[in-house]
Amino acid sequence: MSVGASAAQGKVQINEVGPRDGLQNQARILQPEQRLRLIEALVGAGLSAIEVGAFVSPKSVPCMAATDQVIAGLPAAAVNYSALIPNRKGYDMARASGIETVNLVVAASNTMNEKNIRMSTSEVMAISAEVIQQARSDQLCSQVYIATAWACPFEGAVPESVVIELAGQLLAQGVATIIIADTIGAADPAVVRSLMQELVKEYGTGQLSCHFHDTRGMGVANVYAAVEVGVRSFDASIGGLGGCPFAPGATGNVATEDVVLLLEQMGFITGINMKKLLQAVDLAAELTGSCQGGHASKWLRGQAEKGLL
Amino acid sequence: MSVGASAAQGKVQINEVGPRDGLQNQARILQPEQRLRLIEALVGAGLSAIEVGAFVSPKSVPCMAATDQVIAGLPAAAVNYSALIPNRKGYDMARASGIETVNLVVAASNTMNEKNIRMSTSEVMAISAEVIQQARSDQLCSQVYIATAWACPFEGAVPESVVIELAGQLLAQGVATIIIADTIGAADPAVVRSLMQELVKEYGTGQLSCHFHDTRGMGVANVYAAVEVGVRSFDASIGGLGGCPFAPGATGNVATEDVVLLLEQMGFITGINMKKLLQAVDLAAELTGSCQGGHASKWLRGQAEKGLL
Repeated sequence: MSVGASAAQGKVQINEVGPRDGLQNQARILQPEQRLRLIEALVGAGLSAIEVGAFVSPKSVPCMAATDQVIAGLPAAAVNYSALIPNRKGYDMARASGIETVNLVVAASNTMNEKNIRMSTSEVMAISAEVIQQARSDQLCSQVYIATAWACPFEGAVPESVVIELAGQLLAQGVATIIIADTIGAADPAVVRSLMQELVKEYGTGQLSCHFHDTRGMGVANVYAAVEVGVRSFDASIGGLGGCPFAPGATGNVATEDVVLLLEQMGFITGINMKKLLQAVDLAAELTGSCQGGHASKWLRGQAEKGLL
Repeated sequence: MSVGASAAQGKVQINEVGPRDGLQNQARILQPEQRLRLIEALVGAGLSAIEVGAFVSPKSVPCMAATDQVIAGLPAAAVNYSALIPNRKGYDMARASGIETVNLVVAASNTMNEKNIRMSTSEVMAISAEVIQQARSDQLCSQVYIATAWACPFEGAVPESVVIELAGQLLAQGVATIIIADTIGAADPAVVRSLMQELVKEYGTGQLSCHFHDTRGMGVANVYAAVEVGVRSFDASIGGLGGCPFAPGATGNVATEDVVLLLEQMGFITGINMKKLLQAVDLAAELTGSCQGGHASKWLRGQAEKGLL
């Protein structure tokens, strides 16, 4: 049932991060063919951007091993497939794999960079500049996450000016998209609105995206707050799979189905088929053994059973 | 950990509806002394407004039987205790019980009124006028819920003009507070913002409150949307207990702990002690056997264990 004045509001892009951010935080390690089954289900549901894996140390992150095999088996579709890379070595592997988009991470908090990858923020920025430059000359697309953009588990609240400054530098370096990430799920909608409003004012909406976790139950509210100030691209993770191994206290990402329901009901177009998306949630639950689904799950299942999706 | 610019934002009133709206939708029927234990825990946690029961037919709603006994045993405290009444008979019982505030319900949808209490909206409004008048002369406070204010399970989307008109009539009748209720949890933050903005513009914020369910996972986002346009009073139910026996598909109310976390983190003052609130959630779980807790539960429990609440 549609409610109220849901006039057409234009498109919103959902970047599905379940196959990377989601699976990276599960106890069970999936095989490349299982990861591909999940990705195929997501493509079938209409997701047009998917983070499919990471080129990180298989010793440190065994569940992301063989990401090149996953990429080799990706279904041919008009989907922006991307892979996370931590450094230049990861970039070279990503390029060799044939992926079209690479995702880098820079934490807004210096302590987070030090703890996460043993580099200062300026060292990380120097590497990102090099990789972004290389990607441009290789005709690859690059996206950069500004992690711990609102709060750092070690430093606490992060000043908006730090994020605005980093975003400006990254855009000057030629990055395609900047994803402002609440890595530990500590942001509330008021601070989300405040920072995103400043970023939109400064740099426009075209290259901005947001990444929220639902640790404090504010994931959906944070998406709404960002939409309100013009953000039109969001990360989300099927069934709310996710977390962050380096951020104590972090729980799952905001669930794709919750975000799609919110946006579609508000009149936005995501291009995603909810019925098929729920089938992908079922598959994620089957494969991982620990996918609870989003907050709207019970209601969505009821709608599906009544044939209303 | 506090995040960002949580400058002082003033007070927000939380009206705890767990002991009525919550318990009314549980399989287990609690005894008056058990209901009082829960209310005592809520008072201890700092709740300053609590709906403690209902004067309805004990045959239809056995779990609200003996509400007069609950009221007789209420702890002496600076709390706005209220009871739900469906009609004049309920009002007379409420007055006899010694409660200071009575809550009436008018659905914005005529079909909902017909299905719920076999009266048309104008018949319900006539009765509410009589009861509000009587309450004034008895020096009791009256609050009216405008139910299905955004959507009705039978009629679909409800026009804003209907709610604005009803609210105006009720205020003219001398009601203290109007509680705009998303009875079936169908509203999204965009329609919440739109309607509440109109109501605030028309009638100010002093006599307005909101009541949200979390059916579609948008309860917290809806509270945020209403706060944004000036609403400073909200219903919430401990642990997310609740539902609506007359509204197919409705699930629990938005959880008190989720709402308190949202508001306090945004810099508002609720006067509620989170640690004691979580103890009350534990008690609600023990008593009902089916209280899952809010979306932020896992994180809040972790904070409590670390002594950070």
